[in-house]
Amino acid sequence: MLLVYILLISAFVLYVLRFEYSSQVNGSWEDRGLRGDIGETYIMITFQSGLEYWKSPLKGFEDAGDALGVTVEYRGATRYDAKEQTTVIEQAIARKPAGIAISAIDPQSLIPAINKALDADIPVVLFDADAPGSRAYSFLGTDNYRAGVTAADKMAELMAREGEVAVLTLPGQQNHEERTKGFRDTIEQRYPSMKVVEVADGHGDTIVSRDETLRMMKAHPKLAGIFVTEATGGAGAGEAVQNSSEGRSLKIISFDTNKATLDMIKSGTISATIAQGTWNMGYWSLQYLFHLHHQLTVPAPSSSGENAPLPVTVDTGISVVTSVNVDDYYAK
Amino acid sequence: MLLVYILLISAFVLYVLRFEYSSQVNGSWEDRGLRGDIGETYIMITFQSGLEYWKSPLKGFEDAGDALGVTVEYRGATRYDAKEQTTVIEQAIARKPAGIAISAIDPQSLIPAINKALDADIPVVLFDADAPGSRAYSFLGTDNYRAGVTAADKMAELMAREGEVAVLTLPGQQNHEERTKGFRDTIEQRYPSMKVVEVADGHGDTIVSRDETLRMMKAHPKLAGIFVTEATGGAGAGEAVQNSSEGRSLKIISFDTNKATLDMIKSGTISATIAQGTWNMGYWSLQYLFHLHHQLTVPAPSSSGENAPLPVTVDTGISVVTSVNVDDYYAK
Repeated sequence: MLLVYILLISAFVLYVLRFEYSSQVNGSWEDRGLRGDIGETYIMITFQSGLEYWKSPLKGFEDAGDALGVTVEYRGATRYDAKEQTTVIEQAIARKPAGIAISAIDPQSLIPAINKALDADIPVVLFDADAPGSRAYSFLGTDNYRAGVTAADKMAELMAREGEVAVLTLPGQQNHEERTKGFRDTIEQRYPSMKVVEVADGHGDTIVSRDETLRMMKAHPKLAGIFVTEATGGAGAGEAVQNSSEGRSLKIISFDTNKATLDMIKSGTISATIAQGTWNMGYWSLQYLFHLHHQLTVPAPSSSGENAPLPVTVDTGISVVTSVNVDDYYAK
Repeated sequence: MLLVYILLISAFVLYVLRFEYSSQVNGSWEDRGLRGDIGETYIMITFQSGLEYWKSPLKGFEDAGDALGVTVEYRGATRYDAKEQTTVIEQAIARKPAGIAISAIDPQSLIPAINKALDADIPVVLFDADAPGSRAYSFLGTDNYRAGVTAADKMAELMAREGEVAVLTLPGQQNHEERTKGFRDTIEQRYPSMKVVEVADGHGDTIVSRDETLRMMKAHPKLAGIFVTEATGGAGAGEAVQNSSEGRSLKIISFDTNKATLDMIKSGTISATIAQGTWNMGYWSLQYLFHLHHQLTVPAPSSSGENAPLPVTVDTGISVVTSVNVDDYYAK
C-alpha cells in the first residue's frame, strides 16, 4: 500500500512538472502564436470623440486587441479643438502605454506632442488623418484621390457613361479637395460624353446641401448625377431629390456609411456610397504598435526616424456600397 | 489509508481535467493569440528566383510564418520568363494552399493565373511588383517616386545643396522611371543651386555603368554627384570613381543593399544607398493572407472584388543606409 502511495505521489509530481514545463514552452512565439500581455495597454486618440465615424476604427482596434491578447483604451478631444487633443495626448504619454494611435485634428498642431511620445520611447502611428511632419512610424488611411476616381467610375456606370454631373464638397479641406480632383480628372479623362458642370460648397450641412442641390438642379436642367464628398451633405442631396416638385431623378453617390446614408441606399434615394476601410485603420494600427512594442520589425524601430521599421503609408482601401451589399455595412 | 488513497486519486483526476479544460480554452484566439495550424501552407512565388534580392522578403515571410505557427514555401520561375512564372502559379493552385504571395514579372502576363487562384478561393496578394489589373487583394511594395525624392534630399545634404548631379538608370522600366522622376522633380523644386545635367542608361550592367560614369565625368567637369537607380549600376559607378585617373571625388547614391553595395559604403566609395522595406513586403504579405484565410477581416473577403477587406496599397517604406548604420543591413 505504501508503495502504491509513493508511486502515485511521484506520478502526480511528474504530471505537475510536465504541465509547468509545457506552459514555459508556450512562452515562445512559435508555439503560442502572436500574443501580448493583458497588462499591455494601447490607446486610440481622436477628436470630436463622440462621432459615429470613430466606431468602426475603434472596433478594428478592439478586435486586434482581442486577437493579440492586449488591453486597448479609447480617448479623445470631445470638441474640434487642437489644444484639447494635445492635452489628451500628453495625459496618455504620462501613463506610459505600449503604443498610441492618433487621428490628427490637423497636419500641424499635434507634431510636438507626437514627437514627445516618441522621445519617451512610446510608439505612435497615425490613422485616418495624417501629420506628415511628425516622426510617427506610419500613416494608415484612405487615398482620397483614388476614392474620387472610384466614385467617377461608379457614376459613369450608373449614367451609362453619358450626361452632366456636379460635385457637392467642402472646398479648402484637403481630403475633400482630393476626392473632388480624382472625380473630375477621371470624368474628363475617361468619359468624353460626361461633363462636370459645377462644384458647389455644401458646408458639411444637411440644409445647405439640400438647398445647393435644388439650386443646381434648376441651374442645370440636364443635371443627372451628383457626387457628394461627405455624408451630411449626401443626406441633404437625398432630401432635395425626395422633395423635388418636378419629381426629377438624380443619381447620388455619397461618402461614408452612417445610418442615414445606408437607409437612403435601402430606399433607393442614394445610389451608392464610398465606404472607407475604417476597421482596417484601427486593426492594423494596433498590429503595427504591437510589432513596434515587441521589437518584431526588421529593421528595428529607431525613434530618430533613421529607419522605416514599418510600411510608412497604408491605403486602407474603399468599397462601393449599393443596395446589393448595403446590409453588410450596418453597425453590428 | 484507503481514504488518503481515494483523495489522492480524486485530486489527480481533477488536476488532469483542469489541464484538459485549460487546453480547450486556449483554443480561442483571445487566449492563445494569433496562431494558425502547422498544416496550413502559404506559398511565395517570384521570378529569377535565385536572386539575392528575394532573400529579405522571404525572411519576412518565414518570420511571419514562425510567429503565426504556419508553414511557408518558396517557389519561383528560375528565369525571367512570364510563361514559366504562370506555370509555377498554376502548380501552386493545384496544391490548394492557404494563400499565395506573388511578385509579378510584368503588369499584364500573370493576370489570368492570379484570377484563377481567386476563383479557386485561394487568397492572393502581390508584393514588390504589382499587376494592377488583377483581382488580388493587396499590393505591398516601394513607392518608387518617393524613394527618388528621398535620394534627392540625401544628395542635397551630401553636396551642401549646391552643384551638378546626374542619374544613371534603366530608361523605359517603370519603377526606375519613377525613381528618376522623384529625384529630378525634387532637385528642381527644392534646390535652386543644384542641377540635373544628364540622365544616362546604365543597362543594369556594371561595365556599361562604369563607362557611362567615366564618360559623364569627362563631359561635365563640375559633376559632383550621381544617383544610380539600381545596385549593379551603383557598383559600376563606384568602380569608375575608384579607377578615375584624375582622382576626382563624386558622391554616389545607389539603390538596394546587396553585399557589394554595402562593402562600397563601408569603404567610402558609395556615400549612401536606398534600402527598400523588403522584409516588410514578405512579413505583411503573410499576415494579410493569414487574415484572409481565417476570415478575420472586416468587411469579409469576396473574390468578386466587390469589397476591399484589406489595405489595397501598402508603401513598405525605405531607409537611407550610410556608413553610420550599414552594419544593420548585412544579411544575418
